[in-house]
Amino acid sequence: MNMTFLQEMFQSITQRDALLRRRQGDGTPPDHRRLVEACHRLLESDGEASSIALASRALGMYQRLEPAERLRFFERLASDFAAEPTEIDAAYARYAEQRDNDSLEALFEACEPRRQELIRRLNLTSGGTAELVRMREDLLGLLREHPEFSAVDADFAHLFGSWFNRGFLMLKRIDWNTPASILEKIIRYEAVHEIRDWDDLRRRLDARDRRCFAFFHPAIGDDPLIFVEVALHKGLPARIQPILAGEDVGIDDPEIADTAAFFGISNCQTGLRGISFGNFLIKQVVQELKQELPQLKHFVTLSPVPGFAQWLAERREDESLPEAVRETLAELETPDWHGDAERAERLKAVVKPLAARYLVEEKNARGLPLNPVARFHLGNGAELHRINWLGDVSKKGLKQAAGMMVNYLYVLEDIERNHENYTANATVARSSEVKDLVRKARKLAKGENTK
Amino acid sequence: MNMTFLQEMFQSITQRDALLRRRQGDGTPPDHRRLVEACHRLLESDGEASSIALASRALGMYQRLEPAERLRFFERLASDFAAEPTEIDAAYARYAEQRDNDSLEALFEACEPRRQELIRRLNLTSGGTAELVRMREDLLGLLREHPEFSAVDADFAHLFGSWFNRGFLMLKRIDWNTPASILEKIIRYEAVHEIRDWDDLRRRLDARDRRCFAFFHPAIGDDPLIFVEVALHKGLPARIQPILAGEDVGIDDPEIADTAAFFGISNCQTGLRGISFGNFLIKQVVQELKQELPQLKHFVTLSPVPGFAQWLAERREDESLPEAVRETLAELETPDWHGDAERAERLKAVVKPLAARYLVEEKNARGLPLNPVARFHLGNGAELHRINWLGDVSKKGLKQAAGMMVNYLYVLEDIERNHENYTANATVARSSEVKDLVRKARKLAKGENTK
Amino acid sequence: MNMTFLQEMFQSITQRDALLRRRQGDGTPPDHRRLVEACHRLLESDGEASSIALASRALGMYQRLEPAERLRFFERLASDFAAEPTEIDAAYARYAEQRDNDSLEALFEACEPRRQELIRRLNLTSGGTAELVRMREDLLGLLREHPEFSAVDADFAHLFGSWFNRGFLMLKRIDWNTPASILEKIIRYEAVHEIRDWDDLRRRLDARDRRCFAFFHPAIGDDPLIFVEVALHKGLPARIQPILAGEDVGIDDPEIADTAAFFGISNCQTGLRGISFGNFLIKQVVQELKQELPQLKHFVTLSPVPGFAQWLAERREDESLPEAVRETLAELETPDWHGDAERAERLKAVVKPLAARYLVEEKNARGLPLNPVARFHLGNGAELHRINWLGDVSKKGLKQAAGMMVNYLYVLEDIERNHENYTANATVARSSEVKDLVRKARKLAKGENTK
Amino acid sequence: MNMTFLQEMFQSITQRDALLRRRQGDGTPPDHRRLVEACHRLLESDGEASSIALASRALGMYQRLEPAERLRFFERLASDFAAEPTEIDAAYARYAEQRDNDSLEALFEACEPRRQELIRRLNLTSGGTAELVRMREDLLGLLREHPEFSAVDADFAHLFGSWFNRGFLMLKRIDWNTPASILEKIIRYEAVHEIRDWDDLRRRLDARDRRCFAFFHPAIGDDPLIFVEVALHKGLPARIQPILAGEDVGIDDPEIADTAAFFGISNCQTGLRGISFGNFLIKQVVQELKQELPQLKHFVTLSPVPGFAQWLAERREDESLPEAVRETLAELETPDWHGDAERAERLKAVVKPLAARYLVEEKNARGLPLNPVARFHLGNGAELHRINWLGDVSKKGLKQAAGMMVNYLYVLEDIERNHENYTANATVARSSEVKDLVRKARKLAKGENTK
Repeated sequence: MNMTFLQEMFQSITQRDALLRRRQGDGTPPDHRRLVEACHRLLESDGEASSIALASRALGMYQRLEPAERLRFFERLASDFAAEPTEIDAAYARYAEQRDNDSLEALFEACEPRRQELIRRLNLTSGGTAELVRMREDLLGLLREHPEFSAVDADFAHLFGSWFNRGFLMLKRIDWNTPASILEKIIRYEAVHEIRDWDDLRRRLDARDRRCFAFFHPAIGDDPLIFVEVALHKGLPARIQPILAGEDVGIDDPEIADTAAFFGISNCQTGLRGISFGNFLIKQVVQELKQELPQLKHFVTLSPVPGFAQWLAERREDESLPEAVRETLAELETPDWHGDAERAERLKAVVKPLAARYLVEEKNARGLPLNPVARFHLGNGAELHRINWLGDVSKKGLKQAAGMMVNYLYVLEDIERNHENYTANATVARSSEVKDLVRKARKLAKGENTK
Repeated sequence: MNMTFLQEMFQSITQRDALLRRRQGDGTPPDHRRLVEACHRLLESDGEASSIALASRALGMYQRLEPAERLRFFERLASDFAAEPTEIDAAYARYAEQRDNDSLEALFEACEPRRQELIRRLNLTSGGTAELVRMREDLLGLLREHPEFSAVDADFAHLFGSWFNRGFLMLKRIDWNTPASILEKIIRYEAVHEIRDWDDLRRRLDARDRRCFAFFHPAIGDDPLIFVEVALHKGLPARIQPILAGEDVGIDDPEIADTAAFFGISNCQTGLRGISFGNFLIKQVVQELKQELPQLKHFVTLSPVPGFAQWLAERREDESLPEAVRETLAELETPDWHGDAERAERLKAVVKPLAARYLVEEKNARGLPLNPVARFHLGNGAELHRINWLGDVSKKGLKQAAGMMVNYLYVLEDIERNHENYTANATVARSSEVKDLVRKARKLAKGENTK
Repeated sequence: MNMTFLQEMFQSITQRDALLRRRQGDGTPPDHRRLVEACHRLLESDGEASSIALASRALGMYQRLEPAERLRFFERLASDFAAEPTEIDAAYARYAEQRDNDSLEALFEACEPRRQELIRRLNLTSGGTAELVRMREDLLGLLREHPEFSAVDADFAHLFGSWFNRGFLMLKRIDWNTPASILEKIIRYEAVHEIRDWDDLRRRLDARDRRCFAFFHPAIGDDPLIFVEVALHKGLPARIQPILAGEDVGIDDPEIADTAAFFGISNCQTGLRGISFGNFLIKQVVQELKQELPQLKHFVTLSPVPGFAQWLAERREDESLPEAVRETLAELETPDWHGDAERAERLKAVVKPLAARYLVEEKNARGLPLNPVARFHLGNGAELHRINWLGDVSKKGLKQAAGMMVNYLYVLEDIERNHENYTANATVARSSEVKDLVRKARKLAKGENTK
Repeated sequence: MNMTFLQEMFQSITQRDALLRRRQGDGTPPDHRRLVEACHRLLESDGEASSIALASRALGMYQRLEPAERLRFFERLASDFAAEPTEIDAAYARYAEQRDNDSLEALFEACEPRRQELIRRLNLTSGGTAELVRMREDLLGLLREHPEFSAVDADFAHLFGSWFNRGFLMLKRIDWNTPASILEKIIRYEAVHEIRDWDDLRRRLDARDRRCFAFFHPAIGDDPLIFVEVALHKGLPARIQPILAGEDVGIDDPEIADTAAFFGISNCQTGLRGISFGNFLIKQVVQELKQELPQLKHFVTLSPVPGFAQWLAERREDESLPEAVRETLAELETPDWHGDAERAERLKAVVKPLAARYLVEEKNARGLPLNPVARFHLGNGAELHRINWLGDVSKKGLKQAAGMMVNYLYVLEDIERNHENYTANATVARSSEVKDLVRKARKLAKGENTK
């Protein structure tokens, strides 16, 4: 109850401060040298009240830097703000001799890159957290071409892991009563099935059988970290188009629905890559929904299969498959193949089993499923439950997954066990229906009849 | 505006979860071994959703431990969850050879006590932060007799410093419209001038010339971290009793007052000792007040002088002082000395200059003022402005400071300079009035007439 | 969700305006003549924006009137702001001739006392509603000695009935998270069982088995109109003292309780006398509780029996009762009679049946039960369910009701039927236990053995 | 502050109840007879708790009535729920004889149409107020063809005037943080300058130099009653297109702007026609803005001139005007006339003076200005300040007002005087510039040169 009490002023100050910072420059954009200097001064300050102003000034400068200057700033972060080798050596020497807590603590401190303290101090200013997240977003954009920045990135990731600890996240329902300033972010951030405009958004959110939940962080304010879209449904949904159209989801009355279908999970903050919230979100939303609608029995996703179409295309060159199968696969090239019932039937007999094989048996270098969505849900303890033929007949759905969609099922009693089997042995929990499909895929490969 | 939106449910869940944890035991209080085991399991988990339940279970166990078992648990934290020397040695060896970022990062990780990751994971559960703060409170209670726990404490302090970063704190006005559940904490936490009951509280808060502000942290919810009490005043106040009585503060109308007098700053969370908020609080409150009441000209404290009476008592043995002075000081032993005008006048001529000397010239081992309140405000950039004779004639005030109170003045334009002079050279910023008093103290010591 | 959005500023403006009004005078308290003039000017204004200032000025004057001047103001309200006989006569003449809607509307308007429009216009100013309620409170205080003001009172009552229509009331739970400014009003307004102080309040509110709900009106802000206190209980409670002590209510866990016991209903605004909310409140609270705690089976009051002791005293002169009975009744005079088990047992055999007779059979001039609490709950459709011997052994309870308390039971399916039988035939719905007691009372009267 | 506390639940219950009502039917739409019956039953009930259910049922029935049946229902409201002539006659007879308060009150009650009590009772149910407003909206739609319903409408208007008393209205800023459910209503209700879509809305609201305020009523919840759009500006704005385009309003920084320009006032609830809020709204918004931005000097509208083009067209047949003038006016027929600088200049010399004459001198039957917008602002005490040539070159602006727009200026010190002069003598407050234009118009009429 008292959280209302912890109030709005905070947010408005935060945003006003960031705005002021952006404007505070004297016209000429600063170069990275001045910023590096400002960072040194911040580190030399005592970390208390006077540091706030220094932190604010430094963040303001960063915002006004040109991209080329930002690159140079990161170079300096990597080189000038690392830990000091001579200090490390000295601290280790003392530790090796004394082997006590004090010398160990000193060694730990000597090893901590000075960037970490710098980042903590930049965070002193109100609104600083959000700007640091954006700074890391810039950094991530440079990382591929500048692998030497990975140590800088590790420092951000280390601190963000602590600041965005799940204990600090707040779950919030998003609906048509949500402020427009937040809803427009939902439109922008939706990564799975594009939201075209406000009417489209309303179809997704504003019906009795829809739910949407997001995680927020108090220091980021009204900018969501991640959100999930849910359709209440009678039975497990197989196709995404009716859900996106806001029609025909089976049932309008949430009190009759027995299934909550998660049909889109979108991360919002690029700068928080690698700080995982998705698993917490799903589990907390399941609890939320069970409390609101005790009659719900099934918690299931309707998930895309990114990468499947490409893998399938490679199968046409895969000589371990019979010629006939590979010829059938070629029919996927025919435009509008899914509109031709006979051809679709032929393809279904081949593609669906192969999808099961792809999801269950194809592994990456670490021995985990090749498909990233599968990795996410299986890692959360879900079961690979059903493969849906023509589940997504949008252009994107056909192109990336030959129209397939997958239901991952979250059975509360099995989550822990599935999760452990997956973590320990990379075991893919799967339904008997999926097992059958995998068997069919094997027969296919041997040229046997799969009927 | 949107922070209301980040809502109450959070708080209620938090508290409910903590409550459930406290009850979840099977009746027999757990011993520390089971808790240590639970901690190991938590560290071995993957740090994601399944860890929440493990964290919750572990915190619940801790809550149900008897004090003796808690002591043993901290012993195990100190011994079993430190960094691993063999790993450190190996990591250093690799670093010494490779001298690159990867090996440095690995060394840093090897040096990090495993306690830090443990504490981060305990924080995964909702309500965990508050319970970790209380856990450190227990630990601090043991620290004096168990200095070997200092490394454990350092880990808590390191993480709390990051989590309670000023950027995450929210300032909130406290008044008579504040929920009773928060107000009763204000009563309990007031450390400077005791609040006797609700009527007393009301006198402090609920008048047009009173303000009270507190810092809150979103993960701690409605439990304040620190708060400050302010009286609006016409001119600088010299005596605390009229303020506490809620009468005669000079002026009832905040629009006529020209001075904001800070007369009490109380830290609320023992478990956050050493994580400083006070300087941030004062500066943010000054800004708040200037925005609400642009006519305010002076921001000043009315502060106690703890330790002064003891120092003064020692002066009676101080042979560098003339006999006459020491005899006068002996009159402080007379009960109700301040009620006797003549005697009080005699004492004033001696004690007030000595108070100035005490505050300005007596230093601790680090060369900073001996008086902790002086250190705090001077460190914040305030000026030692005025020494108030019979400023606090309560039993406590007479006993701890011979009735003296001090005004520290915050002049916005001087804060930064004062702060720097203090930090760099331990310079005590002081008014000419105080300078005069110090001069008088020197004359006193020489036996000269101070009139 | 959007009501938060209809916000706080309103309230603060409201209170500030009222405060300013109280101060706006020029020092000399105004007399009633100036106020009457101001009222005329307000009526002559066009009722739009410029009227707000006039209304505010008039309300401010009223607040500064001495009691004697207020009396004179009401005299003028009664005489000068009534409907105009000549206008009524003319309007009726036209109506009698034309018999159409226009002439009827004109007649209606001619009959409406000008006070009604005056009160509507006084209400234009923010905060006006609350001040009009207090104005009627003053009026009610004069009504007994000045029955000629009853027409004035009827006008207030007419408008308040419309403004405080149940559709405008908001139900709000009161607990320990409620602002202190509201809780102190709960302490002040509690009319049934006095709340001594904040600790006592906390015992009543802040336990898992307590609930308190109040009705608020948006134009009155944070001042409750009426509130009810509830204790969750295992089984029907028979005694009030354990409930008030906050102990031993049977069960701490609301999820095990099967009964909600309403143990205090207090009207807060004297100025709203006759505008009934109590029945709405009880029914809405029953719905609230059923939604929160579906396992609740019984909704019952634990109610006082004011007037019973007096009626009982009269029985000692009631010659229709056997001498033996009357002698037993005399024992109620013995101090601490209820502490003497034997005597108490003797009294119980007589007093309890007589209480049933009193509640069921004693009627007022309108043929309804003599006891006002019984009238209230029976009129709401409750059943007179149980009479509790030594239910309230406080001084007040012994004095007003010889220690009796009553459970009125609200059975949802029976409410409508009970209500209709009561309204149509004054039938008192009662349990078989109460029927038995009434039979015993008859036997008592005949001198028969009631065992 | 405590109004947050009067909370959201209310709103959600309200809407849920209305929804349930709409669904509660048994499939066959009810006819008006059943509803009339239900109304009689409601009037016969005791007006307390059991009445809520009856009211809810009746409102539900009304909602499910077909239009033809609604018409019949209003017929029955007019005929069966009026006051009773025989009762009126009897009451008057008694009053004529007794001439006392009691008999007067009885006469007043006899004259009150039973519809009023019916409407008050329908309002008992939560959400009832909003539905009654919609019921009156239906009624107003029928009123032109059914003048016999005017007595019914008068009853609604009488009660709404009391319920929507300005003292119950709450002012709320609308911006991009406002819930989408409210913003979509702003889009829908905007009556002056159409808002095309969400992007257009954002341009209107979400800039530092824009403000929008609305009045809400607690029983109507999140549906605004009226709102006003404001652009902050440097100097008085003359043209609407830059404002609507969200560009070039002169100044982005509200702290530099010296003028608040009201460029759109829209009533939202057809069912509240005749219950005026606009004047209260403008004055309260002026106060709001002055508090936020003390540097604002001018409060001015940029208003349309509906009806002017038609009046101008009639001037072409107006033989009191010289032939030359009438010929010039004919040029308004030329498409895109305002794009031809020379022609526009010719027209300006004629049309602008005529606009001044139209606004100042053309009166309606009641002797007030013919133009309704002028009546509104002059009635509020504003001054007709400036006539802006080509102020609105949209299709609609050209068609309805030959592109003219008007600035009405609100000078706080003059408002009361202007208002009184207008009310008493229909005096049009006007600037010297407007006076000049009126003089030019006279010269034009005489064929004199107006340069």
